[in-house]
Amino acid sequence: MSERSCLSVILAAGEGTRMKSAVPKVLHRIAGLEMLAHVTHALEEAGSGDTALVVGHGADAVTEAARAFAPHAESFIQSERLGTGHAVLAARAAIARGYDDILVTFGDTPLISVDALRAMRDGLSTGADVVVMGFRTDRPTGYGRLIEKGDALVAIREEKDCTDEERRITFCNGGAMAIAGARALALLDAVGNDNAKGEYYLTDIVEIAAGQGMAVRAIEAGFESALGINNRAELAEAEVIWQRRRRREVMLDGVTMIAPDTVFFAHDTRIGRDTVLEPNIFFGPGVSLGEGVIIHANSHIEQARVEDGASVGPFARLRPGAEIMQGAKIGNFVEIKKARVEPGAKVPHLSYIGDARIGARANIGAGTITCNYDGFLKHFTDVEPGAFVGTNSSLVAPVTIGAGAYVASGSVITESVPADALAFGRARQSIREGFGKRLRDRLAALKAKK
Amino acid sequence: MSERSCLSVILAAGEGTRMKSAVPKVLHRIAGLEMLAHVTHALEEAGSGDTALVVGHGADAVTEAARAFAPHAESFIQSERLGTGHAVLAARAAIARGYDDILVTFGDTPLISVDALRAMRDGLSTGADVVVMGFRTDRPTGYGRLIEKGDALVAIREEKDCTDEERRITFCNGGAMAIAGARALALLDAVGNDNAKGEYYLTDIVEIAAGQGMAVRAIEAGFESALGINNRAELAEAEVIWQRRRRREVMLDGVTMIAPDTVFFAHDTRIGRDTVLEPNIFFGPGVSLGEGVIIHANSHIEQARVEDGASVGPFARLRPGAEIMQGAKIGNFVEIKKARVEPGAKVPHLSYIGDARIGARANIGAGTITCNYDGFLKHFTDVEPGAFVGTNSSLVAPVTIGAGAYVASGSVITESVPADALAFGRARQSIREGFGKRLRDRLAALKAKK
Amino acid sequence: MSERSCLSVILAAGEGTRMKSAVPKVLHRIAGLEMLAHVTHALEEAGSGDTALVVGHGADAVTEAARAFAPHAESFIQSERLGTGHAVLAARAAIARGYDDILVTFGDTPLISVDALRAMRDGLSTGADVVVMGFRTDRPTGYGRLIEKGDALVAIREEKDCTDEERRITFCNGGAMAIAGARALALLDAVGNDNAKGEYYLTDIVEIAAGQGMAVRAIEAGFESALGINNRAELAEAEVIWQRRRRREVMLDGVTMIAPDTVFFAHDTRIGRDTVLEPNIFFGPGVSLGEGVIIHANSHIEQARVEDGASVGPFARLRPGAEIMQGAKIGNFVEIKKARVEPGAKVPHLSYIGDARIGARANIGAGTITCNYDGFLKHFTDVEPGAFVGTNSSLVAPVTIGAGAYVASGSVITESVPADALAFGRARQSIREGFGKRLRDRLAALKAKK
Repeated sequence: MSERSCLSVILAAGEGTRMKSAVPKVLHRIAGLEMLAHVTHALEEAGSGDTALVVGHGADAVTEAARAFAPHAESFIQSERLGTGHAVLAARAAIARGYDDILVTFGDTPLISVDALRAMRDGLSTGADVVVMGFRTDRPTGYGRLIEKGDALVAIREEKDCTDEERRITFCNGGAMAIAGARALALLDAVGNDNAKGEYYLTDIVEIAAGQGMAVRAIEAGFESALGINNRAELAEAEVIWQRRRRREVMLDGVTMIAPDTVFFAHDTRIGRDTVLEPNIFFGPGVSLGEGVIIHANSHIEQARVEDGASVGPFARLRPGAEIMQGAKIGNFVEIKKARVEPGAKVPHLSYIGDARIGARANIGAGTITCNYDGFLKHFTDVEPGAFVGTNSSLVAPVTIGAGAYVASGSVITESVPADALAFGRARQSIREGFGKRLRDRLAALKAKK
Repeated sequence: MSERSCLSVILAAGEGTRMKSAVPKVLHRIAGLEMLAHVTHALEEAGSGDTALVVGHGADAVTEAARAFAPHAESFIQSERLGTGHAVLAARAAIARGYDDILVTFGDTPLISVDALRAMRDGLSTGADVVVMGFRTDRPTGYGRLIEKGDALVAIREEKDCTDEERRITFCNGGAMAIAGARALALLDAVGNDNAKGEYYLTDIVEIAAGQGMAVRAIEAGFESALGINNRAELAEAEVIWQRRRRREVMLDGVTMIAPDTVFFAHDTRIGRDTVLEPNIFFGPGVSLGEGVIIHANSHIEQARVEDGASVGPFARLRPGAEIMQGAKIGNFVEIKKARVEPGAKVPHLSYIGDARIGARANIGAGTITCNYDGFLKHFTDVEPGAFVGTNSSLVAPVTIGAGAYVASGSVITESVPADALAFGRARQSIREGFGKRLRDRLAALKAKK
Repeated sequence: MSERSCLSVILAAGEGTRMKSAVPKVLHRIAGLEMLAHVTHALEEAGSGDTALVVGHGADAVTEAARAFAPHAESFIQSERLGTGHAVLAARAAIARGYDDILVTFGDTPLISVDALRAMRDGLSTGADVVVMGFRTDRPTGYGRLIEKGDALVAIREEKDCTDEERRITFCNGGAMAIAGARALALLDAVGNDNAKGEYYLTDIVEIAAGQGMAVRAIEAGFESALGINNRAELAEAEVIWQRRRRREVMLDGVTMIAPDTVFFAHDTRIGRDTVLEPNIFFGPGVSLGEGVIIHANSHIEQARVEDGASVGPFARLRPGAEIMQGAKIGNFVEIKKARVEPGAKVPHLSYIGDARIGARANIGAGTITCNYDGFLKHFTDVEPGAFVGTNSSLVAPVTIGAGAYVASGSVITESVPADALAFGRARQSIREGFGKRLRDRLAALKAKK
């Protein structure tokens, strides 16, 4: 199939009013990735050639966003919204270049499968002129029905135009379509708008092509491939389907999840074997976990890397640039940002470590905080291997704690500490006998007055 | 309908032994609100007139609680528990005042719908003397069946008294009932207790009224309207139904939820469009969120207000009186209580801010804590706009940090800092070369001895 | 039945390759307890006598682990994996001792019920020679069918060997089997390996026994009893079933859960009446909660004890050895480890309390940390009743804060504080007027240069 050239046209111009959002519909996200990007990724994995993006509502935002996930896509603007057939023709200039296959998909069907995309093009390569993606459902109400004669598809019939018999058909139109490049423009131009809404419907191609004796077929895809998103409840349903599928894959690959329904992956989360995920874990994009890692409950991880045998959480937050190396331990109420925690190092409790290196086997006391920001710039903290930082310390960056050095509890460290030194940055303790009682009596009296 | 006078009688005297609780059954909560309050709110929304509360078990607690959510309700004590008919008559004095409509509901059916309440009274206003709320179910076992002849209801038959044919009826008694006020006392007084338990059943009214040639009808309500709560598993089921319905409404209104099943609303949570809710968020009562807000995963929010474009969490806790203004940012492991965080201000990590104002664009370093409590009284901390508070600082209230002032990391601030000043409240750092190694050797030796 | 002697043979030799794990399959956990331990606990509760553990893959690890939960079990090694019949014979030496009953179960069916185990032995005690545990399912595909003639079981037929009629049977083989001790060895030795895989199947016993005119029967167990775990998705399903069952028990016993699906119990969690569990709570093993406790959302609790009326969380972590006494309060972002928090004491925010006693009614300020670890040893902190520890303090153990003493905010306390004294361990505050602005201007200039 790879020898055949292909243009993938993605229709992404719809306004999506039912989303009730300032964000264009196709930029809403599933598993942390824009719906449109899910479609372009599937197309890419299916080897579906060049991409033409038909944009309209929020055109600039969509085109701009697409640069990140589909850098080679060309945008075409559909200035009036006159139906799907009209939308495809917004990419006329690209179609006219002459491709073997034209593959039409929708930017709001984020779960379209690679297999379905391939099957449609397989249909073209084995002689069909038009191939429609269908799906079967026990509840066809509201969907267009695929009217077949033997193996041939003769029409896509809107429900309201169906006979009673046709209405009982459970094989429905899933939206996506493949068209032989040599036929595409002629077929699209033949679509009229003589209907109630005065729109040009892509689906009319089927009847036109069949009427001209062309080979038209339907392939069957799963329900998800056809799942169009029109409001946020449907967006959430698609997320549920995506997450459920991914969790199952992850478990079958040897990851333990105590409560899979409470673990949320991003589109690109990678996890090694024998890693354990406790309940209530949220992965943003860009996370990679090694083997034998344990992520305790209630952790939040994005753009971070956790190596083999490390332990994270509960109640840990790994932010972009966190790198937790072999056997290191990040405990509760700890935030790590743009910092490398080297093998065997520990940050067990109540700490913020940002813009830093925590050297191998170093121990960071509870309540330790890197003061990495002065209101204008970020600075680096370097804790060298084997250093011991006492509790409630502030490390005012830029600063280095030398290998094997000790920082006394409660210290504010503003100058670097040499290796093996002991640093203090706190006041001596003083005690006033009986003054605790006096203070208490005085405060109690004040309260009584109020 | 509003011209007709109405008395709503709520039966709330049951002991609820299967709840196994010291709290009276009707005071257990759904979405943070007592079950009984759900019923009074629905009655109020349906415009159902005066309220008579029939209490028995835990009468004082129920009456007391009702003051908060149904201040005008009159309580009537049912001292013996002799059946639902007997219970309604506990409110005889109120009924005898003469209302057009008497509406009988139950305090343990928290999901009764406003539509059902209205439909029952519509029945009276269009000529019926008695209207029963029914519901349909595929599994009628255990419910009383509604025996109809044409449109007329002739009896409510307990399952054990049903013929085989009647047992196949799937239209069941949902409990609530509307009675023409002019008929009510006569009908209630006609109910006898000649049955196995020796109780007076409200349901007997139907047969009595029908027998006297009155117009008796059933209206159909959804299953939830009839859902009576008898143990905590049923309480949890009602909560699930309530939450699912609310989540759907919220999403259709333009709020994104990645995992709706893990977000829990209170009865009065309000949320603006394009707000994003990550997984695992818990809302207590009294929360209002603006538009374009993002609440990151694992946040806990009650009696708080978050304005447009603000960002909260993950792992944030907003307690009563927290007010997060436009574009402000509350980060991880941060607790805000009775404090206003003004536009653009940031409290990004590991802080407790209580009884305070954080001025616009102020930056609060990680680990900063307002010391608002002296063991007796709470005091106020005022951080003025543009101030910068270094990490691990303690602000000992009452205290003001002036506009544009700097507080050095690790400071204990006990006196107010003028605008644009720099405040220190920490010791100078000292270093003892080689003492880190010595300390380590000594501790290692001590450990070896043990 | 207790008069009959019994040997329970647990087959736990399988490799479990589909688990994709370095951990032997039967040691994977449900509700924090190894699957094999679930089986031994059920056997113990059913009073099922001596235990023979047949191990193979990971034999040492399994035998070692079993010491903790089944200390009296004998291990027998099945060195070759030649089928279930062969596996049982690995315990030949034990069987040969002569027991009334031999009960064969599987280490990877963690939800086998005590009732099913008892029913199988009841079958033997009332005359059967072989009793098979069956279960009914609407989807029998893939399971061996139980072929009965009247009450007698005549064969267990693999699906591929079934006639069309047999394939419609919905009563299937659940794996476990009871065999009269006097018959066991003869029957097992009669099993041949003349089949496609050349293995010895325990199930063949049924046909052999029936053919010899012995009494063979099937008992019916629930689906869960037969649920064998072969991959981590199935492990998660079993966890879901276990948790759902436990939650329901807990609720019916008088515990309120707002969102039961988000609360995860361990096998031994105990909870008193009128305790409220908010969403997203994770219990590790060894937790006991009293009555009227409230555990707020997002808490993580293991090997801890919480007494009546105490309040914990949200965002609290109780680690091993935490003991929260009557009416004490643990707030948000607080970690308690090996520490007793006495009646009425409060640790409301952002604290780490480890190796400590917090005396009755003591108040621990936000950000307080016990410095219990010096890099080598752990030391004890004793806060006596009624003491008040200011915010952001570090208590450097070993140290005692006397009854009624005050510790000033931001103090580092290295020496014990007498009762009723006031302790300071912080620097005096100093202010440099205008230097905040100067600093800001300088930093802004630096940033501009970059």
